[in-house]
Amino acid sequence: MGEEVLLVGEKPESAYTLELMTMLGKGAPRVVVRAVGRNISKAVYVTEGVRRLTGDKIAYGKIRIYSTEVGEVKEEKSVPVIEIEVVNLGVERRA
Amino acid sequence: MGEEVLLVGEKPESAYTLELMTMLGKGAPRVVVRAVGRNISKAVYVTEGVRRLTGDKIAYGKIRIYSTEVGEVKEEKSVPVIEIEVVNLGVERRA
Repeated sequence: MGEEVLLVGEKPESAYTLELMTMLGKGAPRVVVRAVGRNISKAVYVTEGVRRLTGDKIAYGKIRIYSTEVGEVKEEKSVPVIEIEVVNLGVERRA
Repeated sequence: MGEEVLLVGEKPESAYTLELMTMLGKGAPRVVVRAVGRNISKAVYVTEGVRRLTGDKIAYGKIRIYSTEVGEVKEEKSVPVIEIEVVNLGVERRA
């Protein structure tokens, strides 16, 4: 099974918290939470929120920071990206 | 020499970019860039900005995510924190 990825974008923080809880509750061993630009803070709120909600049943694996180019040709600009590897330490399974 | 720390707060991103460049330019081997809550995105913009400005003369060491309690007693709430260890790979020295 390839690595599962959760891209944190413009939806409310709670939507991603629920989505990550569901992925982990279905038994995903690892989920990479990725966010671009101004959504980086939200991604960290989501992973820390899930860590508290699950009573520390997650841990952090590799956390990567890099940049990606966005925009039309000749008008690209660099935008930072964060990837947070969330490791499932036994989040309660749900159907 | 203890580890140098740059706390990214409410000032404009450019102020922290300049401050980090100055710290590295004075020869600091490592700087821990720390930010709380909604300033986490800004911290990542700062470190990636300095990485580009220095032509990749920095690398990332340990990146830590955790939470801290803020607020009055009985009204504390958890707020996420990021710590990004910036390693100096030879940023041009300045007086």
